[in-house]
Amino acid sequence: MLDNLLKYRILLASNSPRRRELLGGLGISYEVVSLPEIDESYPQNLQGSEIPSYIAQKKAEAYKNMMTQDTLLITADTIVWYDGKVYGKPFDEENARQMLRELSGHTHTVITGVAITTCKLQKVFAVESKVTFDAISDEEIDYYVTKYKPLDKAGAYGIQEWIGYIGVTGLEGSYFNVMGLPIQRLYKELKNI
Amino acid sequence: MLDNLLKYRILLASNSPRRRELLGGLGISYEVVSLPEIDESYPQNLQGSEIPSYIAQKKAEAYKNMMTQDTLLITADTIVWYDGKVYGKPFDEENARQMLRELSGHTHTVITGVAITTCKLQKVFAVESKVTFDAISDEEIDYYVTKYKPLDKAGAYGIQEWIGYIGVTGLEGSYFNVMGLPIQRLYKELKNI
Repeated sequence: MLDNLLKYRILLASNSPRRRELLGGLGISYEVVSLPEIDESYPQNLQGSEIPSYIAQKKAEAYKNMMTQDTLLITADTIVWYDGKVYGKPFDEENARQMLRELSGHTHTVITGVAITTCKLQKVFAVESKVTFDAISDEEIDYYVTKYKPLDKAGAYGIQEWIGYIGVTGLEGSYFNVMGLPIQRLYKELKNI
Repeated sequence: MLDNLLKYRILLASNSPRRRELLGGLGISYEVVSLPEIDESYPQNLQGSEIPSYIAQKKAEAYKNMMTQDTLLITADTIVWYDGKVYGKPFDEENARQMLRELSGHTHTVITGVAITTCKLQKVFAVESKVTFDAISDEEIDYYVTKYKPLDKAGAYGIQEWIGYIGVTGLEGSYFNVMGLPIQRLYKELKNI
């Protein structure tokens, strides 16, 4: 499968263990490269899916000097979007608890932007999934934040962790997208490269 | 969490590694017991969610003689329901390929029935999730069936395996339910025991 990619050296530039695991599930050969410190700010007029798409491109730019003829670079960014506001990675545990209190009992959107970059082309796309949280008690939020320390996760939660087990009543869209990489769409886009 | 269950010895009667892993995610203490050979036939007038609910109860009955005052037994059954027909575990690889060819390009329903049983009560419920498959090529189906041998899985696929990565365009409901246990609903029901 994906034999069209055999001529490329595929690089996933991401510090996220979930993304590394998900790309592995496609059964292709790829290398992981760490993402350097990147300024993840974005123009304030961007909305929803424009934001992670912009940041995924920005992450790709950081690798500009490393690209050779046969490099295919994958970069991605995930945000939680709720009530017209971005929920990124929490600053600290109190901020994480605050985010989860706000998301509790509501439906939010998780958006992952992905950039596939070679020397000759760049394909950027974003995938949205809707996640509905049950009313989660302060006690449950405390338990989760203290035990799982979700400071590296947009919206302060991992759907594959305890809070995803006990708190998510519904999902609409791709589960893997919520984990950080819209793997089915990525597979399709890679098939067409 | 779930301190109300401390007085029980929780048994999960299931041969499914996915169910064992999912229940583990709740962070409670439980023991796994193997399910003996059970006649999984059901009255032909049952439809949709009635079928896995009926079989989950039947699985619980097989443990009747092992139940003590403090036992809390969890049993479950998962089916794929599409076009008014049940897709259970495939008989062989050819049957698995056939099932996947039928599900390809369509939306089906995955239904898990769960029975929580103690000496004094039994709570039975079923949860439905909708899964949409992209058009999956015969080559992709062959690759999956040969490599993953999904003979122990209702509908001949595991959403957490390669085919779930490349083939599922959309999900509506609980992802964990598709894996075999509607863990969020189970958590809620257990809280109310």
